Amino acid sequence: MTSLNRPADPGLLSINTATVRQRWGLAEIIDGCARHEIRGISPWRDQVKALGLKEAAQAIRANELVVTGYCRGGMFPVSSEADAPAVRDDNRRAVDEACELGAQCLVLVVGGLPGGSKNLDDARRQVRDGIAELLDYAGSQKMPLAIEPLHPMYAADRACVNTMAHANDLCDELGSGLGIALDLYHTWWDPDLMEQIERAGKERLLAFHICDWLVPTRDLLLDRGMMGDGVIDIRKWRHAVERVGYVGFHEVEIFSSETWWKKDPNEVLATCKARHIECC
Amino acid sequence: MTSLNRPADPGLLSINTATVRQRWGLAEIIDGCARHEIRGISPWRDQVKALGLKEAAQAIRANELVVTGYCRGGMFPVSSEADAPAVRDDNRRAVDEACELGAQCLVLVVGGLPGGSKNLDDARRQVRDGIAELLDYAGSQKMPLAIEPLHPMYAADRACVNTMAHANDLCDELGSGLGIALDLYHTWWDPDLMEQIERAGKERLLAFHICDWLVPTRDLLLDRGMMGDGVIDIRKWRHAVERVGYVGFHEVEIFSSETWWKKDPNEVLATCKARHIECC
Repeated sequence: MTSLNRPADPGLLSINTATVRQRWGLAEIIDGCARHEIRGISPWRDQVKALGLKEAAQAIRANELVVTGYCRGGMFPVSSEADAPAVRDDNRRAVDEACELGAQCLVLVVGGLPGGSKNLDDARRQVRDGIAELLDYAGSQKMPLAIEPLHPMYAADRACVNTMAHANDLCDELGSGLGIALDLYHTWWDPDLMEQIERAGKERLLAFHICDWLVPTRDLLLDRGMMGDGVIDIRKWRHAVERVGYVGFHEVEIFSSETWWKKDPNEVLATCKARHIECC
Repeated sequence: MTSLNRPADPGLLSINTATVRQRWGLAEIIDGCARHEIRGISPWRDQVKALGLKEAAQAIRANELVVTGYCRGGMFPVSSEADAPAVRDDNRRAVDEACELGAQCLVLVVGGLPGGSKNLDDARRQVRDGIAELLDYAGSQKMPLAIEPLHPMYAADRACVNTMAHANDLCDELGSGLGIALDLYHTWWDPDLMEQIERAGKERLLAFHICDWLVPTRDLLLDRGMMGDGVIDIRKWRHAVERVGYVGFHEVEIFSSETWWKKDPNEVLATCKARHIECC
């Protein structure tokens, strides 16, 4: 087997809890990861809130899981200045929670156009300013922030940072404490991706998310594929991030209302494990 | 009214026939354009074939319509070399038809990953080589080829050229006779768009397509919006292309299975006319 075909290290699999959230609460997901010998987990705020922050942190520690990211802060652009303090405060709470959970980073989904706006440049300015402000606070708590570039099809309603180049530009501008959560679902199409992974380097690559792009894709949000079921050359990109020094986890995040969310989560986790070795 | 609010010239409206194709054949669309005093049209090959090439050309001429583009050539990547000659021949026929119709350009939707492939680099190489070969033939017929960058959500199944930067790179590499059909639906999200419009310049901008991005977008292919119903700042971009010297038509191309395709095409054309002035 050549080095380019070397399969992923099973010890580096992480489960983003969105992958099984429809049928399990966070406590069950933590148990499930432990039972399936999956060492990484990336929980969402609403699930943590439902279980209780201290309880969640304790269950994660008790099962010796690595929190490979906390989902999520961001959503910076607002229609009115009056809304900015609430966004700022909520993001600071997300930093605090990430600290309590011992997360490796707080993932930022930066937000799109605020209601009714067509001004993408302004939304992007608000994102830059919002990250800059949050970075001060996060730095004081020693919590790295990871910008997650989302696919351009989410530019209007979820995140107006849509390329690794844009995320790298923000890192250049805003300095240390800021990095990138690279999700292949969002970025696999980008002809600039290899160059931007090299530009990001080990220092900035704070997380690496995987799933697959299905053909056809039947829904913009909820039709992501299991690794191996789509067209992304996941192994190629895993090798690319490793070449620049990334040694972190491979976090599986699958939104799939019609397929994976309907299955028994035990089957989903077992499939993630198998496909991680086979396809990643 | 400042120059930046100056509405579009109604004489520059063109209708891509996909916009009303569900309820009208090409002959009816040509009549409809004439009746609504719309001066530009961009027909699809299957509709031309259904009416007959000579009949279509004659009806278009009789109504003094400008053919602002012919849809479409391309689909270059193939799974097997054995399939390449058929693609090449079909694209040459598309050039011939575009000439017969007096089209301003042949629009190229370049194709995505051939069946089963995950090799996007190879698909892009095939696209480059396919355009290079077709360009020789098109040049001999004096038919400009216009690469249409499609939204990244179509990278797998329709077109692996997804940014203006990539299209400009291909133009740099392959030389004269090749330009770009800029469609805002596909490119509005791109932080690099203004720079790439300036890079393209008057020479390369062979067509300018408009519609709107809806929030939410319920289908990847068939939920495009009428100008003004979504989040694209169409007027801003129309001014941007005019600033670099573009004086061509503004072609409305709306795939909308649940909304516009269900309406009376007369109402659709009247709405296109009104929104063109109001929003573009």
